[in-house]
Amino acid sequence: MFETLEVGKHVKGSDFNELELPLRQKLLEGQFGLAQSEQPVIIVIAGLDGSGKGSLVHRLNEWMDPRGIETNTFWEHSDDEESRPFFWRFWRRMPAKGKIGIFLGSWYTAPAQAMIDGDITAKEFKLQCQQIEAFEHTLIDDGALVIKIWLHVGREAQRLQLKEAAPGKQQNPRVTDQPYELRGKYKKALEVSEQLILDTDSSHSPWHLIEAEDRRYRDLTAGQIILNAMHNKAAQATSQPAESEPQTTHVTGQPTVLDSVDLTPVLSRDDYKGQLKKYQAKLQDLAWEAYKEKRSIVAVFEGWDAAGKGSAIRRVTQAIDPRLYRLVQFAAPTDEERAHHYLWRFWRQLERDGRCTFFDRSWYGRVLVERVEQFAASNEWQRAYSEINQFEQQMVEHGSIVLKFWLHISEDEQLQRFKAREQQPHKRYKITEEDWRNREKWQDYAVAIDQMVSRTSTRHAPWTLVAGNDKPHARIQILKTFCKTLKQALEN
Amino acid sequence: MFETLEVGKHVKGSDFNELELPLRQKLLEGQFGLAQSEQPVIIVIAGLDGSGKGSLVHRLNEWMDPRGIETNTFWEHSDDEESRPFFWRFWRRMPAKGKIGIFLGSWYTAPAQAMIDGDITAKEFKLQCQQIEAFEHTLIDDGALVIKIWLHVGREAQRLQLKEAAPGKQQNPRVTDQPYELRGKYKKALEVSEQLILDTDSSHSPWHLIEAEDRRYRDLTAGQIILNAMHNKAAQATSQPAESEPQTTHVTGQPTVLDSVDLTPVLSRDDYKGQLKKYQAKLQDLAWEAYKEKRSIVAVFEGWDAAGKGSAIRRVTQAIDPRLYRLVQFAAPTDEERAHHYLWRFWRQLERDGRCTFFDRSWYGRVLVERVEQFAASNEWQRAYSEINQFEQQMVEHGSIVLKFWLHISEDEQLQRFKAREQQPHKRYKITEEDWRNREKWQDYAVAIDQMVSRTSTRHAPWTLVAGNDKPHARIQILKTFCKTLKQALEN
Repeated sequence: MFETLEVGKHVKGSDFNELELPLRQKLLEGQFGLAQSEQPVIIVIAGLDGSGKGSLVHRLNEWMDPRGIETNTFWEHSDDEESRPFFWRFWRRMPAKGKIGIFLGSWYTAPAQAMIDGDITAKEFKLQCQQIEAFEHTLIDDGALVIKIWLHVGREAQRLQLKEAAPGKQQNPRVTDQPYELRGKYKKALEVSEQLILDTDSSHSPWHLIEAEDRRYRDLTAGQIILNAMHNKAAQATSQPAESEPQTTHVTGQPTVLDSVDLTPVLSRDDYKGQLKKYQAKLQDLAWEAYKEKRSIVAVFEGWDAAGKGSAIRRVTQAIDPRLYRLVQFAAPTDEERAHHYLWRFWRQLERDGRCTFFDRSWYGRVLVERVEQFAASNEWQRAYSEINQFEQQMVEHGSIVLKFWLHISEDEQLQRFKAREQQPHKRYKITEEDWRNREKWQDYAVAIDQMVSRTSTRHAPWTLVAGNDKPHARIQILKTFCKTLKQALEN
Repeated sequence: MFETLEVGKHVKGSDFNELELPLRQKLLEGQFGLAQSEQPVIIVIAGLDGSGKGSLVHRLNEWMDPRGIETNTFWEHSDDEESRPFFWRFWRRMPAKGKIGIFLGSWYTAPAQAMIDGDITAKEFKLQCQQIEAFEHTLIDDGALVIKIWLHVGREAQRLQLKEAAPGKQQNPRVTDQPYELRGKYKKALEVSEQLILDTDSSHSPWHLIEAEDRRYRDLTAGQIILNAMHNKAAQATSQPAESEPQTTHVTGQPTVLDSVDLTPVLSRDDYKGQLKKYQAKLQDLAWEAYKEKRSIVAVFEGWDAAGKGSAIRRVTQAIDPRLYRLVQFAAPTDEERAHHYLWRFWRQLERDGRCTFFDRSWYGRVLVERVEQFAASNEWQRAYSEINQFEQQMVEHGSIVLKFWLHISEDEQLQRFKAREQQPHKRYKITEEDWRNREKWQDYAVAIDQMVSRTSTRHAPWTLVAGNDKPHARIQILKTFCKTLKQALEN
């Protein structure tokens, strides 16, 4: 989840100056509208130490009218708090209607710290997350708007921050002299944070993840998220139709997770043949072993048009006994499917224990094509991240092994393949007007893919980004990933 | 929770015949509106064996158009189901938009049975309840209406049902010949059921509890609940203002839990004096012991006007060192309080560990005066039951000891006290026009109290209904309950 955020998003000083003023103005307008609306806004700023939470809070106070904002910090433990039920300390700090309460340190801090320190079990942690959900739900039912922002910095950037050695203006002022409680626990802290986000990410109070290494990007994005949330809430209160404008909170022209995929590797014909044989044989055995262990395998294949999805899937299915797998392909939903929850048509396809189900396109259509083409309303695709995570988590808890592949190719490579297809009579059927239209929305898709990967690449069901410019390489990468993942899972 | 439902609610045959036809008609209209609305309705019928679930399902199928209803039962375990994630079996049975799915046996059955049989721990059970909540939430977010009905019969009635010895037409046909899995586990089954309801009772999919001993009352009430839920959902979909008509689902003129309070006991002056001294002394010691153990005590006093609440509270506070307790009285909320969630003003009053907080009127105002006087919208007071249960559960989990008293007097007794007050110059201030107005709504309040007690009398924070016609008796009953409860709690 977090690693995939580290793509180097940043904003130049001159761009920042241009973007800041209109954003401030809109935030102030939003705040003014809020004061009329009688709804409280609760903003949670979370993230590991060194991610610039305090610095963001300063900025928000600077941008908005501080008379309507209360910033609440919970870093010192008070006797008064400890001797009452946990949520008492937060209840008493709740903003009144029309006000904004910023929480720096919140109901998330104590459970996360306890879990990182090993003071509570995974089950206890989950139960505390459940209480948090109930708490937020109670506030939201009463009209509150809850905005939860998670700032993430990579390991190296964090180290520099904590040493106060970050370059120039990127250094966030250190707010406290407290001992850095996460020292040496970075990996564990990320694991716990991911679980925390998965368990408390609901349709009514979703998490927003921001790559926070660049403070300009961080602040603009956070400001935009807050603005969007206030807008949507206001629209909802006046029963206006849901916003139809795309709800991307990104500053345009940012790198995405796809930019981190190295597309240069090429596999020679001989290497390919040898490895294909080797990994297909391995996969065959592993699939039978999974059958014997009654572990089912669920694999999702997504990718750009002409990325070679179909032929890559064939290299996988060739390896597996047809009695063990079923391949399901998805295009537009049928009438019956349309009459159900969008997950329904995927749930019904799941094969039983010990079998493989391969999805050629999948539930991720919700946050890709349905998002970009606006087939789904923004609240629909936004809540889909947590719905999808829950769906996959249920599979994993049941014992299934979940694999997810995004076949990536460059824009140029796609163009060449499109042209080649048009020139070959037996492949011409594969290329339609729609493919050309989709191609024009490459950037929108890239943003959607970026967010999809960061929101749904979990430890239990991670995404594999496949370097697809060289088809042989892509196929072997997929087969290798299959073998490695199955082997690890079957050893557990 | 369940025991307080057993008050003998029933409907005469002639009344049933009169009420049935209009209800059927409205249900059919509701069903027709639904078919237009593109929303699925999911009706869960739950309850212990012998509570007449199957019989109610027959009736619902008879009342509504069976072409739009699918009844799903989950009583035989299938291999096909077991070999997929738990919720697969339910997903595939989800009704399409515009249809009704009745679930006889549902996602609640397996976790409850496992908990009753001791196959899972309390924590695992809670986590499964959390998954259920997430599952229902996913459906509701997509527009589904989820109606959950719990049928309860008392132990003796259940025994008769299972022996097929219930009188005349009250015998529900036995649907299965399966061994009765709850035999000898009635008490445990009720405990688990209460926990299950507390953990899955949310504002979006609340539970409805019905005393199911009398099949006519059971069916009419269930029908009315379904009808109300469909109406509210339709109003919500068309963005109409929330229904302002009171959402009581009761058939009028039913007995309430208050009718089960024996108001005849009288304490002689001498007995009273002796016992007052004895229990006040005990309470004094226990309060100090609680202080030493750092257990806080939270006591709620509610009751009819002129029930003697104030003087009863004094008998309690007299016993306790003023350093240890604080008494807070509640009337209409202040401006500041109004600008927050209704629970806010109670949260802030909680004393720290080891101290007592006495609430002269409390958060129960939400489901009493605010409900009856329509200060709160129906969805507001309806979701308050689960909010209150969560609030109290948090106190109990923190180590607080929670007591709740309803001071009950008869209507006649109140009238006499009102008149007496009017005639005594030094007490005349105590009686106002409002008291007389409230008195006219006695029946509405009785219904609200009945529901409040059944929905919020939990094992951890049970209600005590105090027989208040004789003031000395009432005071001693309260003091005794205090002593008993504190003693038990401090021994744990």
